[in-house]
Amino acid sequence: MASQITLSILGCYAAAPGTFKNPTAQVVDIRNHLFLVDCGEGTQVALRQNRIKFSRIKHIFISHLHGDHFYGLMGVISTFSLLKRSAALTIYGPKGIKELCLLQLKLSQAYTSYPLHFHEITTKEPTVLFEDDRVIVSTIPLKHRIYTNGFLFQEKLGERRLDINACLQLDIDSAYYAKIKQGGDVTLDDGRLIANADLSFDPEPAKSYAYCSDTAYSQKIITYIKQATALYHEATFLDSHEHLCKPTGHSTAAQAAQIAAKAEVGQLILGHFSTRYASLKGFIEEASPIFANVHLADDGKVFTF
Amino acid sequence: MASQITLSILGCYAAAPGTFKNPTAQVVDIRNHLFLVDCGEGTQVALRQNRIKFSRIKHIFISHLHGDHFYGLMGVISTFSLLKRSAALTIYGPKGIKELCLLQLKLSQAYTSYPLHFHEITTKEPTVLFEDDRVIVSTIPLKHRIYTNGFLFQEKLGERRLDINACLQLDIDSAYYAKIKQGGDVTLDDGRLIANADLSFDPEPAKSYAYCSDTAYSQKIITYIKQATALYHEATFLDSHEHLCKPTGHSTAAQAAQIAAKAEVGQLILGHFSTRYASLKGFIEEASPIFANVHLADDGKVFTF
Repeated sequence: MASQITLSILGCYAAAPGTFKNPTAQVVDIRNHLFLVDCGEGTQVALRQNRIKFSRIKHIFISHLHGDHFYGLMGVISTFSLLKRSAALTIYGPKGIKELCLLQLKLSQAYTSYPLHFHEITTKEPTVLFEDDRVIVSTIPLKHRIYTNGFLFQEKLGERRLDINACLQLDIDSAYYAKIKQGGDVTLDDGRLIANADLSFDPEPAKSYAYCSDTAYSQKIITYIKQATALYHEATFLDSHEHLCKPTGHSTAAQAAQIAAKAEVGQLILGHFSTRYASLKGFIEEASPIFANVHLADDGKVFTF
Repeated sequence: MASQITLSILGCYAAAPGTFKNPTAQVVDIRNHLFLVDCGEGTQVALRQNRIKFSRIKHIFISHLHGDHFYGLMGVISTFSLLKRSAALTIYGPKGIKELCLLQLKLSQAYTSYPLHFHEITTKEPTVLFEDDRVIVSTIPLKHRIYTNGFLFQEKLGERRLDINACLQLDIDSAYYAKIKQGGDVTLDDGRLIANADLSFDPEPAKSYAYCSDTAYSQKIITYIKQATALYHEATFLDSHEHLCKPTGHSTAAQAAQIAAKAEVGQLILGHFSTRYASLKGFIEEASPIFANVHLADDGKVFTF
C-alpha cells in the first residue's frame, strides 16, 4: 500500500481581534510519526475535538514566537503532565522558547512528568531538525517580521518493491528477496545474472509536505520546497490588501499560488486567512488562475496526499 | 436603586486532563468597574461568548501562577493591542508575572498599543491593591501549593439617601441637599436644628464579594471575608477524595461550606470542580447541610447580588 501523509488542520486563522477562529496549529501524520506544527491558544482543546491521540505526539515544531502560533504551547506541555505522560517530548523553535517555557514552569513550581527537550533554532539556511530511517524534517527559512522558519517533512525513499511473479517464474530462492528489495541483482544456479530491474519495481515515491507560515512572498522558498507533494502556504490577504503585505510580512493568495507554481508542487493549501474577510471565496478565485490545484484550509479539515 | 454586584463565570473547572471545561476566569462588575479575575487558557474566547466588552476591563487580578489560572493572559494582552486599545491596563499578580509577560512580548518583538502596568504582589497579610471613591480591592491570603491570593471586592458605603418628603415638608432649601447626603444637620431660618436622621435614610449597605481559589481549608480566611455578601470558594473535591486536599492544596465542598458558615457570608458559590466528577450534584448535597444558601458555578452562569 502506498504511504500517505495526513494533515489535520486544528486552526488556520491569523490573529483574530474581532471574531474567534482558531489560531494556527496543525498535525502532520507521516510514516507513523505525529508532528504538531505550531500551537496557538486553544490547541489542546482542538486536539481533543479532532480526536488526536496526545501520547503519539513526540515532537512539536514552532515556526515563530508570535502569540497566535505558540500561546497554546504551555497548556499542551502542562496537560501532558496531568495525563502522566512518560514519553519524551521535544520542542523545536526559535531561540528564547526554552527560557520562556522553563520560566513558566519555574513560576508554577511545576515539573513535567516526562523528559522535556528543547531544540532551539537559529540557522538561516535549511537545516535538518529531525531524522530517522523513515522521515527527515528540516527548516524552511521564511521572510517575516521576526525570525521564522517553515518546516519540510519528507519521507525517505522506501525499499524497492518485489516483483513476486517474476521471482516465482525464475524460481528465485526467497532468501534473496531482502537483497532484491535493497536493489541487488541475483545470479541463478545456472550462472545467469538477473538484473534487479527484472525482479522489482521502483519504490513508492517519497512524499513530502512543506509548511510555510508566516511569510511574505520570497523567491528563496521556491528552491527549498521544489516538487513537494503538498504545500501549505499562508495567504493572509487578498489582492485588495496587497499593500499590507510588506509592513506585516504576509502574502496574498496570488503570491502563494506563484510560489506553488514555480516550485511545481503537487497541490497548494492556503491558510492563515485574515479574519477581515467574511467569505474565503476570493482566495480560491485569485489563486486558481495561477495554480489550479489549490485548496482552502479550515479548522477541522483533514487533507490526505 | 440599590447597587448590585454581577459575577460572570467564564470558567470554573480545575486543570482538566480528560475532558475540556474552561479553566478559571471570571468577571466582577461592581460599581461600574469591570474586573477580570484569573485568566485561564481560552479566556479571550469566553469573554466574547459572554459578550463582555473588552474595553471596560482595566484591571486583571491573577490569584497564582498555575497554568489553569493564567495561560490565557498573554492572549488577552495581545488581543487588546490588535483591537488598538489605548486605555491603560493593570495586571495584579504574584512576583514573576511581569518578567514572564515582558519576556513573551520581547520574544514576539511586540509592544502593546496601550500602557501596560504590573502590580506584583508579595504580601502575606490582606493588602489593598486598588481603591477609588467607589470600591476597594484587597488580597485574601490563601493556603495553596504555591503563593496564592484571593481577592475581596468591596463597595464603599455610599451617601445617605435624601428623605425628599421630609425635606419638602420642612421647606428645606435644596442648596442643603448635598450637605444632608453627607450626613449634616440643617438649621432652619427660624433657628430650629433638624437632625440629619430626620432628613435622610441610611445609605444602601455596601456589598462585597470574596474570591477564594485555589486554597486548602484555612481558618484564617474566615476573618478576612467576614459577612461578605457573596463568597466564591473553591471546592475541587467531594468528601470521598478529602485525602487529596492536603497534597494538592485544595478543599472539599463541605470545607468550603464551613468557611461560609463561620464567616457568616450571604451566599456561597462553589467552583473549581475537579473534572473527575460526572455530576456536580454531590457538591450541593455535601455543602448544603452546613451552609444552606449555596450555589454551583458553571461556565456562562451569571450571579447577581
